[in-house]
Amino acid sequence: MQINEFQRMMRHLYFHRDSQRGTTGTYNWLVDEVEELGRALNETDKEALEKEFADVMAWLASLANVAEVDLERATLSKYDHKCPKCRHAPCECRF
Amino acid sequence: MQINEFQRMMRHLYFHRDSQRGTTGTYNWLVDEVEELGRALNETDKEALEKEFADVMAWLASLANVAEVDLERATLSKYDHKCPKCRHAPCECRF
Repeated sequence: MQINEFQRMMRHLYFHRDSQRGTTGTYNWLVDEVEELGRALNETDKEALEKEFADVMAWLASLANVAEVDLERATLSKYDHKCPKCRHAPCECRF
Repeated sequence: MQINEFQRMMRHLYFHRDSQRGTTGTYNWLVDEVEELGRALNETDKEALEKEFADVMAWLASLANVAEVDLERATLSKYDHKCPKCRHAPCECRF
């Protein structure tokens, strides 16, 4: 599924709640989900780990909806098949 | 661009560095980028905000590569056009 199609799915499912909660509240949920992902990385349950990745994707898309950002366009504007810093592929600078 | 295509792009660009850094180090980068996104949400620079969304997407995909998780499959397994909790679309439970 395309990134922007997923963002539209999240809009359809959740925008009525996300927009009421607002940017700060939605960001705080994203932070909570990133923390849960961090804990799942230290466990051995692969299925639970995958669900935490899913939740971070979902809340990032929800936050993009509230912040009126096109997540796919924003992402591909910076990451256009080359490293944005060194302009090489593979990157020669990330550490 | 499809989510899994973006993950493959990140693998091509960064996996040689990401795999050396490992799961914990890559997760710590993701956390840093989420914090930068939080700061950008409180500013008025839309272009800078979009770049922070891009960075969170990029590091989430890098982390999925290191953790050997298919980000698209994981995401769509949980978010399949219905809310995973209440099974409604739009969701009737998220708050």
